[in-house]
Amino acid sequence: MDEKIINNIKTLAIDMINKAGSGHPGIALGAAPIIYTLYAYHLNASTSDPNWVNRDRFVLSAGHASALLYATLYMAGYNISIEDLKNFRHSNFKTPGHPELDITPGVDVTTGPLGQGIATAVGLALGEKMLKERTKVNNESLIDHKVYVLASDGDLMEGVSYEALSLAGSLNLNNLVILYDSNNVTLDGRTESVFDENIKDRFKSIGFNYELVKNGENINAINKAISKTQNQKRPTIIEIKTIIGKGSYLEGTSKVHGKPLTEDDIKQLKYNLEIPNIEFYVDELARSEFRRKFQERSNIKYQKWANIYKEISQNNEYLNSIAYIFNRNIKCNFLNYDFKIDKVKEATRTTNNKVMNEISKFIPFLIGGSADLASTTNAYIQDLDITKDNFLGKNIHYGVREHAMGAISNGLALSNFRVFASTFLSFSDYLKPAIRMSCLMNLPVIYIFTHDSILIGPDGPTHQPIEQLAMLRSIPNIRVYRPCDLNELIGSWNNILNDNNHPSTLILSRTDVNQIPTSSKIGTTLGAYIIRKETKLDGIIIATGTEVETAYTLAELIERETNYSLRVVSMPSMEVFESTPLEYKNEILPKHKHIFTLEASSYFGWDKYATHNLGYNRFGISGSKDEVLKEMKFDFETLKTKIIEELNKD
Amino acid sequence: MDEKIINNIKTLAIDMINKAGSGHPGIALGAAPIIYTLYAYHLNASTSDPNWVNRDRFVLSAGHASALLYATLYMAGYNISIEDLKNFRHSNFKTPGHPELDITPGVDVTTGPLGQGIATAVGLALGEKMLKERTKVNNESLIDHKVYVLASDGDLMEGVSYEALSLAGSLNLNNLVILYDSNNVTLDGRTESVFDENIKDRFKSIGFNYELVKNGENINAINKAISKTQNQKRPTIIEIKTIIGKGSYLEGTSKVHGKPLTEDDIKQLKYNLEIPNIEFYVDELARSEFRRKFQERSNIKYQKWANIYKEISQNNEYLNSIAYIFNRNIKCNFLNYDFKIDKVKEATRTTNNKVMNEISKFIPFLIGGSADLASTTNAYIQDLDITKDNFLGKNIHYGVREHAMGAISNGLALSNFRVFASTFLSFSDYLKPAIRMSCLMNLPVIYIFTHDSILIGPDGPTHQPIEQLAMLRSIPNIRVYRPCDLNELIGSWNNILNDNNHPSTLILSRTDVNQIPTSSKIGTTLGAYIIRKETKLDGIIIATGTEVETAYTLAELIERETNYSLRVVSMPSMEVFESTPLEYKNEILPKHKHIFTLEASSYFGWDKYATHNLGYNRFGISGSKDEVLKEMKFDFETLKTKIIEELNKD
Repeated sequence: MDEKIINNIKTLAIDMINKAGSGHPGIALGAAPIIYTLYAYHLNASTSDPNWVNRDRFVLSAGHASALLYATLYMAGYNISIEDLKNFRHSNFKTPGHPELDITPGVDVTTGPLGQGIATAVGLALGEKMLKERTKVNNESLIDHKVYVLASDGDLMEGVSYEALSLAGSLNLNNLVILYDSNNVTLDGRTESVFDENIKDRFKSIGFNYELVKNGENINAINKAISKTQNQKRPTIIEIKTIIGKGSYLEGTSKVHGKPLTEDDIKQLKYNLEIPNIEFYVDELARSEFRRKFQERSNIKYQKWANIYKEISQNNEYLNSIAYIFNRNIKCNFLNYDFKIDKVKEATRTTNNKVMNEISKFIPFLIGGSADLASTTNAYIQDLDITKDNFLGKNIHYGVREHAMGAISNGLALSNFRVFASTFLSFSDYLKPAIRMSCLMNLPVIYIFTHDSILIGPDGPTHQPIEQLAMLRSIPNIRVYRPCDLNELIGSWNNILNDNNHPSTLILSRTDVNQIPTSSKIGTTLGAYIIRKETKLDGIIIATGTEVETAYTLAELIERETNYSLRVVSMPSMEVFESTPLEYKNEILPKHKHIFTLEASSYFGWDKYATHNLGYNRFGISGSKDEVLKEMKFDFETLKTKIIEELNKD
Repeated sequence: MDEKIINNIKTLAIDMINKAGSGHPGIALGAAPIIYTLYAYHLNASTSDPNWVNRDRFVLSAGHASALLYATLYMAGYNISIEDLKNFRHSNFKTPGHPELDITPGVDVTTGPLGQGIATAVGLALGEKMLKERTKVNNESLIDHKVYVLASDGDLMEGVSYEALSLAGSLNLNNLVILYDSNNVTLDGRTESVFDENIKDRFKSIGFNYELVKNGENINAINKAISKTQNQKRPTIIEIKTIIGKGSYLEGTSKVHGKPLTEDDIKQLKYNLEIPNIEFYVDELARSEFRRKFQERSNIKYQKWANIYKEISQNNEYLNSIAYIFNRNIKCNFLNYDFKIDKVKEATRTTNNKVMNEISKFIPFLIGGSADLASTTNAYIQDLDITKDNFLGKNIHYGVREHAMGAISNGLALSNFRVFASTFLSFSDYLKPAIRMSCLMNLPVIYIFTHDSILIGPDGPTHQPIEQLAMLRSIPNIRVYRPCDLNELIGSWNNILNDNNHPSTLILSRTDVNQIPTSSKIGTTLGAYIIRKETKLDGIIIATGTEVETAYTLAELIERETNYSLRVVSMPSMEVFESTPLEYKNEILPKHKHIFTLEASSYFGWDKYATHNLGYNRFGISGSKDEVLKEMKFDFETLKTKIIEELNKD
């Protein structure tokens, strides 16, 4: 019967791809026995409660195997219809081209860009460890599950997967099981000449168990290998040798990777698989047998969990954790909270450390870490570190692995932690692909990027961000905050924490700034506000972050010296401001022939507001802060001259 | 004497950092014996001809060790003055905060962002292999050198280094020698808990030789380990166990990583190193001894090379290669060349394949590759592939390693190849950090990004680029080209090849487009031009790539149906257009109340021109092309309605 079910999954996937006119038959035929064995004999999940918090997670890192996954989920009894399968890759169905969160029941992570899924799975595995420790009662825990990944050759070649798996090894994440579909073929050909690794040695060297299944058609062998992972002390990779496009005329070649099979090929395939040559044929006996296997076993685990839940939910000690586990949404108000922080001249990265530590007292699930720069980004909670011996801590040391930090943060956010991740703004480039995944999945990850401009000086152009703010602001769904002082930091955090469906970035300085007497928490929550009122409106300077103080001082000085009166608008978040009502926008930023934008950054993206950009579009230099500002024509005197010259043009 | 020289290098570096008020004493003290041993006994280069094409390359991947490098180069006799050392990290001196190409003699690569240097070094090593094969005469070759890298723990943790080194192993790049400064300490602390790898096994598993030097102060041991790499068949990593901040009070701790030492600490350090406590003290005997060692050995190699050069330069067969080896600058004109390509409806990725293959006949150093997508980006030259057995080919298979592809391309560009690198536009995110390095170093790398919009349809939002064009355009120094057809492709290539100091991106479609009868090669070389002239100027549509045809058809239809007459401006390159004279810009794009921008992309960055953006700012969906266009309100009918509504507002 196993074989029958697998064969039916294969032909369904092939029919889906054929009808859609695009997709990936190679992995569908090659890896069907793997995914079937997992669902039939190991993975515990609930088709009736697909978001069950203690389900085993399955991450299809090889997201191009979507047809295979959907066919499996359909056969396993998830709420997916045959119509969904027939409309694979069409809008308004549960079967998009690559797996997408919130569209398909049973899909735990959006995948497709190689390497992301496997790295996010490390975050899910770490999240499980952290939740488990937070929900222990007697010798059991409310959260206790596995994270399974189906990965391809390509996933293992991607740097982000190496980064994440190296950390998984260092943290002994023994709840992580990688099913490696090892077929030695990628889109452009055979892997030998470009991926000549000893997988066993490589994974053992980074702290993994290694299992080999020589024949990917052998369900017993796959079964046994997965069973062996149950009581391991370390994460496991199971290398399963498969044949891409198994059973197709083109099996074993790259030609079967990403194009539908011919009619003729499908015909002989179905014949050999003993499936009638009827489009979308479903063997109902096979289907019900698969459902039974999958659901009976899962139900035992589900019931056990329900009992623990009953016990734990009556225990006050756990209320806080339980609330988060079931619902990531935070509602809070820190606008009137007395932060008891001295208002001194200091870098916003320093002030932020104080603010986030205060906030963390009320939001216990606020956790996070840095890619080896916590001691200088100051994004650190005064609490324990996460180590392989302690998953109750709040600070994660990612090592020098920015990209994995982003992807792992996505996994932690999927575990309902409110997670922050920090590095220098110039290195935000390294995790752009993971930030995009946060945005695609609407995960409220908080990216804290410090050392936010050329003002860092001596470290030079490699470390001075220029275009990074534009890069971040251009991503759909994100909110970028660049606060100028304590008040704006509090306003930013208030927005960030209450915004449960958008990733945010907090852009912070290494340079000391004065507190602006007129800065406003509430103004910040609206994205922009008038921080200096004009006496008569000769022009407007829009500024963010460290430049708000500059703009304020410039306006004061210009009014004293020239009688031009300038409004200063502080705009900590462009995206939030854009989301306010038109009346508010027009009130803060009326049309005017002199609108200056002042941000120590590329002016790319500021033309929306500016009649005159005061930023630049070039790389910086290594030098003292003053040397750099002068070179970039961004020193106080030059800015003053530029503004007055423009105003004089009337 | 060795020890004396090393001690003097150490104290110079410490004085530099102390005077600058910032820098990294930890690695300067820990790794000085490594870099000294390399320069004194192995590295062949010329202080009088620092750009000698056959010099051994040295890549300081741990770019934060810049003070150590500059002190070494000074002592070794490079044209760096004591004033340069005294003004470390100040503008207008040869000693920037991190090593920068073209500023300091002896610096071969800009480094600083961890992982980039080591991955670029793989490109240099591959470049050497390719040059060597192209300049073989009898049994010798004009190019025959080593690539040495000094790498830190952080370098090895970065995914990009794993990607590149895995490929280096697969390609048997035995000219690559990595000196791994293994001190188990990074900025945030000790590495054990986050980087618990068996380095020996890891590197052996990816095809490297591994050597261990247990005591990083032992010059003989370092010497011997480097000597052993001379006749290896594979690349080598030498793990050299060092003590960070050796000799400081803080040695062995993360505290000595990135802050100047105290006066007191410096005093005891110099006392123990037997260097007088005088700022920037130079032992001239030590200095001249180091120069002698370094230069005498290097000169032998230099002379030998000069002889081969004499021989080879008289041989016509090599003229082409030699020209490129000495000068990366290309001058060419393909505007009037008869490409003999049928003008048919096809995707620009397909047309591009024809164009670049034709061009490659004239530019033999045009080489490149793809991150496992050559068969669908079609960026491929009809020539041999590069494999470990053949470095004469023109196509590099990078595997699924976008980030390494970018960094390796930088190394190949530094070897004076005109290199292209291709993947899908949505995956350009993965190599953003490497593209930034191309821009910082002004390397003319050609990034070919296909599948350039939501028009790809079924693959869904993970594969549909939205914000990537904005990301690319925001980087200083880059030129982004999005041609609409064959003529614009030729114009783009003509610009790209003649632009020897800027990286370019070529943005191509998977969707078929018609050739536009009025498209212009020369117009393309100006960045933008009028592709449809209005009868009276009721408005302007600016379009790029696949949307030029749409804009053209829209304008025709609207003129027929409404009598509004619209100009259509094709803008294949925003950056190039911006660089044209103001008169030209005003002629093409006069001020007007109706300027529409039409690009299947985020409109972020288009406000510069637009009164009305027709793009979007959201992710796509998986569906047929038409389903996606409808969902994004970017279908023909909706666009037409939007434009007419705006025009009616008069």
